[in-house]
Formats: sequence, structure tokens, C-alpha cells
Amino acid sequence: MLKIAIIGVGTVGSSVANILKKNKEIITARAGVELVPTIGVVNDLTKKRNVSIDLTDDINKVLEDDSIDIIVELMGGIEKPYEIVKKALAKKKAVVTANKALLAYHRYELEEFAQDIPFEYEAAVAGGIPIINALREGLTANNITSIQGIMNGTCNYMLTKMINEGVKYDDILKEAQDLGYAEADPTFDVGGFDAAHKLLILGSIAYGIDAKPEDILIEGIQNITSYDIEFAKEFNYSIKLLGIAKRDKNNIELRVHPAFVPKEAMIAKVDGVMNGISVIGDKVGETMYYGPGAGGDATASAVIANLVDIARRGKGSPMLGFEEDYGEKLSLLSKDEIRTKYYLRLEVADKTGVLAKISTILGNCGISIEKMLQKPIGNEKANLLLATHTSTEKDILKAIAEFEKTKVVTQKPAMIRIEA
Amino acid sequence: MLKIAIIGVGTVGSSVANILKKNKEIITARAGVELVPTIGVVNDLTKKRNVSIDLTDDINKVLEDDSIDIIVELMGGIEKPYEIVKKALAKKKAVVTANKALLAYHRYELEEFAQDIPFEYEAAVAGGIPIINALREGLTANNITSIQGIMNGTCNYMLTKMINEGVKYDDILKEAQDLGYAEADPTFDVGGFDAAHKLLILGSIAYGIDAKPEDILIEGIQNITSYDIEFAKEFNYSIKLLGIAKRDKNNIELRVHPAFVPKEAMIAKVDGVMNGISVIGDKVGETMYYGPGAGGDATASAVIANLVDIARRGKGSPMLGFEEDYGEKLSLLSKDEIRTKYYLRLEVADKTGVLAKISTILGNCGISIEKMLQKPIGNEKANLLLATHTSTEKDILKAIAEFEKTKVVTQKPAMIRIEA
Repeated sequence: MLKIAIIGVGTVGSSVANILKKNKEIITARAGVELVPTIGVVNDLTKKRNVSIDLTDDINKVLEDDSIDIIVELMGGIEKPYEIVKKALAKKKAVVTANKALLAYHRYELEEFAQDIPFEYEAAVAGGIPIINALREGLTANNITSIQGIMNGTCNYMLTKMINEGVKYDDILKEAQDLGYAEADPTFDVGGFDAAHKLLILGSIAYGIDAKPEDILIEGIQNITSYDIEFAKEFNYSIKLLGIAKRDKNNIELRVHPAFVPKEAMIAKVDGVMNGISVIGDKVGETMYYGPGAGGDATASAVIANLVDIARRGKGSPMLGFEEDYGEKLSLLSKDEIRTKYYLRLEVADKTGVLAKISTILGNCGISIEKMLQKPIGNEKANLLLATHTSTEKDILKAIAEFEKTKVVTQKPAMIRIEA
Repeated sequence: MLKIAIIGVGTVGSSVANILKKNKEIITARAGVELVPTIGVVNDLTKKRNVSIDLTDDINKVLEDDSIDIIVELMGGIEKPYEIVKKALAKKKAVVTANKALLAYHRYELEEFAQDIPFEYEAAVAGGIPIINALREGLTANNITSIQGIMNGTCNYMLTKMINEGVKYDDILKEAQDLGYAEADPTFDVGGFDAAHKLLILGSIAYGIDAKPEDILIEGIQNITSYDIEFAKEFNYSIKLLGIAKRDKNNIELRVHPAFVPKEAMIAKVDGVMNGISVIGDKVGETMYYGPGAGGDATASAVIANLVDIARRGKGSPMLGFEEDYGEKLSLLSKDEIRTKYYLRLEVADKTGVLAKISTILGNCGISIEKMLQKPIGNEKANLLLATHTSTEKDILKAIAEFEKTKVVTQKPAMIRIEA
């Protein structure tokens, strides 16, 4: 048998313990050994929990207990879990975590520290979807051309409703909070930060590069309006919060932001709280992985997949996908260097000469227009909704600055990137 | 370095050798060791091949060569590859295969024979999609409720065109043959046999049960007509050739046949030559895996994924997903015991009393109608296209026999199962 300690027995931790008991027969048959949830560590022993596992609030006792083989870290936070998992590894205990923030900031240090001790984290990205598995073991023949991930169920739930049912942002946020899909302070989700943590992990496995959240573009969904939704419908787009990774020769892009995605793309069909990640490899072509990105049982399924792996074979793959250094020759592009198509929403005075001014400014910045929709919005104003051909972020920002400087727009322009 | 011998250097074998060279840098960095395509074994040395690997027609020399670490079996056929891979394993060479037929018939014997020698086969099911990886390593916490797989690109290409463009079966078959998507004798693909081989492999990993093609229902797409397509459109279905596995307590169903699938289901959105496999686990919920099911590079991607796995860790998971016996308590349902919804196409004389007769027969068999479309087709005949509520195969076959016996139908009834 292997004895498991679960640090943090909330929704996911309870599911881990409960599933190990409920599905014990088939899990044991697959693993070749019984995985026993032995002890759970919590802060508050008085809180009622729907789980049958012995509980303690003494984390050190658990770390010192030589009979514990594997630590499951479900604490939340960054620096305290970092200390805990390092202690566990120093004690030669294997670690399984769901902690994307921990990995966003400390994954390379942990890989170095862990050495030959198994350290796994399938549950940290896209919940129950075995995406780490797929990317790190399934696609190793490929240079990864791109990753497009819908990896935050809160945002995807909200955007799906906004697009399909015309619900306004503020209303759907409230509904999401009532349903438990969004926190009281939703910023971490709606601001794109949660998706960014997950993207960074995938970027490391795909390219062997380190990056922190501060290094990349992160934009959330808070500024999406019904005008943007209208444009999307008019031109057969969906709008998704995407974590995007791309490689072009030795240049890597990593970014998180809302994006127009053509409705016929597979990734556009991932709705509600579901997650989906499209990975294009230079040899395999387009692959996609779809499933529940959150939830106690779905996330616990990924945790237990790692436990079974460890039981079967100890350490398997290199933690972050590379046995040898690879990523040093690669450069992470700065935000300015992003090249994509852009949607711009410009509120203008509804009078002659405005369109000419807009076009001239865009032309001066080397930007050409692919699609446009002009809609009067009352008070002698109109929205110009337009999609550009491929441009650089630098040129788009220059054009936006010029719009504002020349006062040809009556409001700050909105910009949403378009993914082909 | 690890030396690789490729037995059978056709489309996939050439891709394996070429990708190992072209993507050598990143593959080596991920594997920690160079994977060197050392020798290829072919029947015909005079044939021109677009590959830079030494070739021989002497397979025994390769099997006897102790410097060869891994055999890639891409021969095609069943019994000859079976002998070859057993010889390789006896010589302690790891084996990677793409041979679904070999595994359909000999997978448990090979698991027994291989013991601790790595034997991998990601490329045998759904081409480049790492589905073996996902099912065998990613979802081990779950009892697998169901698998629905689109695993034959030939059939999916044809059905997509028939549904989306109204192309007739004979015409699209010819087009598929011209494009190389179907063989001169297409039976193996359009008859569902190829998909069946793949389903059996997945069924073993999911449930620990052995089954041969002869044990399960296999129906192909050859009898699908434009009337069926019309019904599909009317009621918002797509039609797909599905490999289906289901578990209900200790009863397992395995079957391959065309099926109506609701258009809004994710699996219905897998079009053209692409493959897609939906796996529902009792804890994770619905997951789906999508990508190219065939093609030299895509299939080679899966072969190389296995090579990298072997390089990193030797044998990893138990070959068919179970370290201990599990499936013996499970029963494979017979075809009679299938329970699903059914579509029936009944050609009848267009006159009074016919509908009453049909309904009476169905009622006597315990079958109730959920949807119906009646369409005149000339010559005083009509097609009754109907969908039943959940019924058993036994009852449906009884009703069909009764239709024919009482001569209320003017042609043999057609039946297509409906997947919820």
C-alpha cells in the first residue's frame, strides 16, 4: 500500500479521499497497489466536512511521518505551499499538487529541488482534462506551433451566456457568483490571472522556457460589451478568454486575453464551464482536449491519475518535459511584438469626415481594415466596429493613441484581438 | 543513444525516420537521449522511398542485432507481425507498434509475453491523438461510463460529405478512393472493422476485458441513404460511425455501427478525416480528444511519443492498463441485449391502414415512437422514418421480422441506432 496525506481538505481534497475509497477496487487493480488516504491536514478541525479521513492540524507531524509516501498539496497560496512541498521532497515523499499559482512562480525551482522524487501536477491545469499528460508525453515528436486554451471556467461560463443569451456582463457576473462559479472578488478569474498561471505551465512543457505572470500580457473579460457581441455575431465569431502560446522560429509568444475566434473552430465550441485546449504540433497537426476544468471530483480525478502513475512507476517523465536544457536559445517576445488581427470599437461623432480621419490614421500606422460595421448609437454618435488584417501590437497601440490625441473618438477605444 | 529499427518503411515508417531526424534537437532534449533510426526492414529494396535510413530485407539479422534497442513494427497483417514482435521481445528489445489488428487479436498474449519489456501502441488507435495515454494514464480514477469514438477517417470523411453536401454514398466512396482516403477494396474501413479493432483495444484499457472482433456487433456505413440524411437534418442529428463502449454495473457493451448523434454533442462536431473520442468517467465527467486519425506524420507522432516514453523511463504503465486482474467479473453483453434508441426507415404502400399496422406491431414488441416523418416517394409508396424511445435490440429485430412477415413494408427495413 501507499499512504497518502492530503494537505488541505476542501472540495478537491474531500473528493480525492472519497474517490480513493469509492473507486478503490478499480484504482487498486490499475495501480497494482492500494492508495490509502491516511491523513488530512486542515487549519480548522471544528469545521464539518463530508469526508471520511482522519484529520489533524499538525502539518509538521505529517511531514515527519516516515510512513507517509505521497503528499497531496491542495492548500492554496504560493509561499507556504512552496515551503511545505520542499519539506516533503526533502523527506523523499512524492508530491502531487493542483496548485497552479505555486507552479507559475516556482516550477523550475521545484523541478531542480525534486530531482528523482516524483512531483506531479496534472490537476493544476484544466481540471480533469489530462492535458499535462497529453502535452508532456503524447506530443513529444512535435515542435509546438501553437496552444490556444480555454482554461478558466468562470470566464467561459460568462462569455457563453453573453454570446448565446445576450446577458450583460454585470448581470452574468452576479449570476456566476450566486452559482459559485465566481468568487466574491472575481478579479483573479475575470482578470485572466488564473488562466495565465496555467498557460505558463503549458509554455514550459512545450518550449522549455521559464516565464512569470509579470512577463506576459494578461487581459481579462471585464470590458466586453454588447457591441462587441454584436460584431461577433455579425461576422460569425465567438468570444473566448484564451491562453495563447505560439512559436515562430526561436520566438515564443505567451499571452492571455479575450479573443474573437471563428465559430467553426473546434475551440469555439467549448462552452459553459467546460475547458478546452487546442494544441497544434508541426507533425501531428491540430489536436484538442476537452473536459471539465474545475469541480471537486473532476480535479480529484487528475490528482488520482498522478497518484496511480507514481504507484506504477515512480518518477516517469521529466517534471517540465525536458531532460536536457532546451529553451535557452528561445526568446519570449515582448507585448509590443505580438502580431495578430485586431478588432477595434471606436465611438465617434456621427458626421462627415470621421471615417476618412480614422482610415488615414490606420493607414499611417500600416494597418489595413478587413471588416467593418458602423452602427448609430444615438446622440449623433456611432460605433465603428472594425477588424484589421494582421498588424503588430505596437502599431495598434500607436493608432489608438493617435485616435485619442486627435479627438476623433469620443471615448477610449476598445480593442480585442482576433485569433485565426 | 537508443537504436531504433523500423520494420515496414511505408508512409508511417518513412515519417518516423524523417521526423526523428528533422526534430532531433527537441526530441533528444525531451527524451534525454538520442533516438537514432538505424535500420529499416522492407520487402522490396528496389522500391524508391523518400527516406534517409539504411534499408535491408533481412529481418532476422535485425532481430539478432543486439545493438538494436527498440523495434517499431509497421508491417501490417496479424500473424507475421505477431511472430516478429515476440521474437523482438524474447531478445529483450522494446516494441512500439501501430498495428491495431495485431492488438485486436493478440493483445493479452502480448502483454503476458512482454512482461517487463516495454510494449507500446499509441499509434494503433486514433492516429496522432494520444488517446491510449489519456485513457490509460489520465483517467485511472474513474469507472468508465462510456466511450464514443469516431476512429475511422474514411467513414467520417464520407459521412461528413453526405450530411453537409448531400453527396451520395457511391459518389463519395469514389471520391474518397481517388483522394487516397479509401482503399480499392474499402470494406475494412466502410464495414466498420478498422474501428472495431480500435474499440476493442480501448475496451480492454477501460474495463480489463478481452474480446475479439467476432464477439461484438460490427456494422458499416454502406447502407446509409439520402432518406436517412433527411431525417437527420429534420431532427438535428449528425450521422457518425461510432465505436461505442458502455458500462452498466458489471455489464459491458462493445459495438461499432453508424449512429444518429445530436448535432449539439461535441462528438458530432468532429468532421472530415478527423477523429474524436468522447470518454465519460464517473468522476471526471465528459472528456473529449480530437485530432488526425491517420496520415504519415500524425501516426508517426504517436509512434515517437512511445519511443520518448521508453527512453525516459523504460516500461511505464501496465500495457493494457491493469496491474491486477479486474475484468473477470464483468460480462460482455450479447448483441440482443443492446438497449438504445432506434431509427427505422420503412418503405410502405401509401394507403390507409398501413400506419395503424406499423404502430400495432411496434406496440406488440414494446416499442414506442418518439419522432416520425412520413414522406411520399412516388409509385404510391411512402417512407416512414421514425425514431423510437429506448428499446432493446431483441425487440427491434422482432418488430423488423414482423414487418417483413406481414408484408406491410415493401422493402427490407433499414435500422440505424441513435446515441443520446
